[in-house]
Amino acid sequence: MIRGSVGTVHTQVHTFSSPLMLESGAVLPSVTVAYETYGSLNPERSNAILICHALTGDAHAAGYHEGDEKPGWWEMVIGPGKAFDTDRFCIICSNVLGGCKGTTGPSSVNPETGKVYGVSFPVITIADMVMVQKKLIDHLGITNLFAVAGGSMGGMQALQWSVSYPDMVSRVVVIASTAYSTPQQIAFNEVGRCAIRSDPSWNNGQYYDQEYPASGLALARMIGHITYLSDESMHQKFGRDLLGKSVYSYDFTTDFQVESYLHHQGDRFVERFDANSYLYLTKAVDYFDLTVNGSLIDAFKDMKAKCMVIAVSSDWLYPSYLSREIVSALAQLDKTVEYCEIRSNYGHDAFLLESGQMNYLLGRFLSHLTVSDLMIRSVPTVRETVTIKGAAALMIAEAVNHLPIVSSDGRLVGIVTSWDISRSVAQDVKTLEDIMTRTVLTATPGEHISKAVNRMQKNRISALPVVDEENRVVGIITAERLSRLVVRCE
Amino acid sequence: MIRGSVGTVHTQVHTFSSPLMLESGAVLPSVTVAYETYGSLNPERSNAILICHALTGDAHAAGYHEGDEKPGWWEMVIGPGKAFDTDRFCIICSNVLGGCKGTTGPSSVNPETGKVYGVSFPVITIADMVMVQKKLIDHLGITNLFAVAGGSMGGMQALQWSVSYPDMVSRVVVIASTAYSTPQQIAFNEVGRCAIRSDPSWNNGQYYDQEYPASGLALARMIGHITYLSDESMHQKFGRDLLGKSVYSYDFTTDFQVESYLHHQGDRFVERFDANSYLYLTKAVDYFDLTVNGSLIDAFKDMKAKCMVIAVSSDWLYPSYLSREIVSALAQLDKTVEYCEIRSNYGHDAFLLESGQMNYLLGRFLSHLTVSDLMIRSVPTVRETVTIKGAAALMIAEAVNHLPIVSSDGRLVGIVTSWDISRSVAQDVKTLEDIMTRTVLTATPGEHISKAVNRMQKNRISALPVVDEENRVVGIITAERLSRLVVRCE
Repeated sequence: MIRGSVGTVHTQVHTFSSPLMLESGAVLPSVTVAYETYGSLNPERSNAILICHALTGDAHAAGYHEGDEKPGWWEMVIGPGKAFDTDRFCIICSNVLGGCKGTTGPSSVNPETGKVYGVSFPVITIADMVMVQKKLIDHLGITNLFAVAGGSMGGMQALQWSVSYPDMVSRVVVIASTAYSTPQQIAFNEVGRCAIRSDPSWNNGQYYDQEYPASGLALARMIGHITYLSDESMHQKFGRDLLGKSVYSYDFTTDFQVESYLHHQGDRFVERFDANSYLYLTKAVDYFDLTVNGSLIDAFKDMKAKCMVIAVSSDWLYPSYLSREIVSALAQLDKTVEYCEIRSNYGHDAFLLESGQMNYLLGRFLSHLTVSDLMIRSVPTVRETVTIKGAAALMIAEAVNHLPIVSSDGRLVGIVTSWDISRSVAQDVKTLEDIMTRTVLTATPGEHISKAVNRMQKNRISALPVVDEENRVVGIITAERLSRLVVRCE
Repeated sequence: MIRGSVGTVHTQVHTFSSPLMLESGAVLPSVTVAYETYGSLNPERSNAILICHALTGDAHAAGYHEGDEKPGWWEMVIGPGKAFDTDRFCIICSNVLGGCKGTTGPSSVNPETGKVYGVSFPVITIADMVMVQKKLIDHLGITNLFAVAGGSMGGMQALQWSVSYPDMVSRVVVIASTAYSTPQQIAFNEVGRCAIRSDPSWNNGQYYDQEYPASGLALARMIGHITYLSDESMHQKFGRDLLGKSVYSYDFTTDFQVESYLHHQGDRFVERFDANSYLYLTKAVDYFDLTVNGSLIDAFKDMKAKCMVIAVSSDWLYPSYLSREIVSALAQLDKTVEYCEIRSNYGHDAFLLESGQMNYLLGRFLSHLTVSDLMIRSVPTVRETVTIKGAAALMIAEAVNHLPIVSSDGRLVGIVTSWDISRSVAQDVKTLEDIMTRTVLTATPGEHISKAVNRMQKNRISALPVVDEENRVVGIITAERLSRLVVRCE
């Protein structure tokens, strides 16, 4: 399979100018959202996947901005032929509320005062981020997301989606994440915030027209960066190698490569991130706790999405037991859930680095299609009493080859095809009754697509009406529609 | 067994006024060492144990300073009846070079300039710390340490002792430590130093007569403190409990108990520690690397001490593989080494908290006594040619009950006891030959003391001459001397 890039992409923005009430009760007068999309929505708008970014990510998940040499942050898994296959899906990624990459956040101008918010920006939550994403999805005319996926803070958003809007999400992918922040995670976030607040240039958040709190933000990033790596990966990457010297300097200049690397990471981060956003986003992460009365079972009881949970063996910031707690709760609720622990030395960052394992796992999960995912929902039907000519006219008008025949209460009683019509002409048959098939093979919305495909191939038929539990026609799947997808099914 | 405290103790200081050449080549004009001792040196000065403290510890390892309510930092294992039994051992603990608790460090006055060193203090290493401890041990008239023990940075010093002064150390106990600092450990230390240097009050280390870099040092401590705890222990201790509130504050005040705890730890630390010392000591830890050409086997080849290595199951800062690497190298060299992994949720700090397991393991290791540890080395002997009267006179003069009888080249040929002398008087025997025992039971220096004790008890004798491989008398063990110790032997 050729794995390509989506090529040149552009960030779009949309502004919702009505006030937005946040979880805290505070109100934002308006919200601008920066987002990117890759691939096309199908006519049914049923192939949209929302990608949620991690703490310091942005809407630029894949492809290249004009003139850039580096692609978006999850290029590894987004593009033609990749797990998030842009030939098949419409991928959407937006910058989170509270961020600094185009979506409204503390560095935005408060339209009511004409001044930058700074720390007057209200404290936001993961649920608030998701609410803004939901407004964007509504705006794009999408009523159901094929999937919501994300790693780390992105995984929190994906889980939150399945809880906040259970009817809108068919699949959820949660990678290297958790259903609640642990005290150790909170502790690391708090020392990061403390580093920013301790920088005199932070100036209580009012630094936008003066010196930037660079050293505080760099320090926060350095702390965070250690937690994203693993002990093993640091051994492999740096060992105890010195920086351009063969003996210790015996002073406080940089001796070790690992120190130099961390400072470099800190300095680069300062160029691209807002210190106040770092405060707000880490706070949202700390507040994240889906448990209801201490229970994840209560939290997930209304969840409808199929769930894939992926942990990383060497991730000590979001250890795998946190993923297994999610899986355990979902399994106890008899929800559909898959779990996999990636074997990787990369630590938390593995979800951004382990291309092979991530593409395999995500691709497989997204290929777990049901009939419901792929059926044509607006299927024309005819009553038994119709004439052959009437049926033929409807076929031409609707440009279909198959017409399910239904009783007065909508139950399936037979099917007629364009081939049957041709036969009636050849054999001079006069009534629908003489050409229709009464023993109709059907599919059900919930069954795995591969089963339906097998039934079609075995019986050499090119369409299956999809019926509900009362044998009412709810859709149809056709060979034509499936042909391109079957290769991806197990 | 009653486990008591050593009670009120005092820190002593000693100044070495001759210049000290450091590993870097820099020279300190003089060094003052602060130290404490608990228990008494035996006449042979063979029962001294040196305790080495961790990064922010001090010489006050046990007992109480006048008026204090909190005891020394390792009270848990030091005292009468505890593992470091002050009824049996003389425990010595000194503040490390570069520290700020009485031993010369960056906050000391440079005698050559009359000003505080600050960052003009030379960069020191773990080997330098150990060299200063060695000067103290020399000063105390001790030529051999029964043991050197420590956790974390203290474990590094203990290992360094066994490598730098192999003939002076009989036992080494290395707890929650490593033979070299890893890149992750260096990374955490560097962000801690960065926090201090980023504090404007640090002022390039010249803050002693002005504002203290409190926020930088507190932040460094907060970072460090997270690494000393474990994910599990933080769950148990704090969970997601809020601080005196039932709902989120939705602002940047302290929401969670874990945040409050960390700030408290940071603030308390600032009251008792010098920011520059933190820079120097973490640098010494970073530089620590005993490997020789990348090999621990080469590093330990001349080591003579018996070694006990203890790791903590939940210690992620000094993970157990680092301890096992030490054990593996020593085992390959056929050195005597024991390894144990404490099962604890406390993380790195377990060596300061797991009282039961630590007392058990340390006590057992320190009870692994050999004949050499307990024999009387200055043992009077007589030649076969001596008269009974001459032998009796020597017994009285030396206040002993047993006199080994040796040949002209010092080899053991028999033994005579005060009881034999008494018999000669009763039976009117005239020559030593008639009363001496020629078939003498002996012990060897390396054998376990319990074996020698068993031999004495089985044969109802009260002393065993200790002989070397050539049957030369090198000491004697007596029932009297052993009686108090036997109960501790396995």
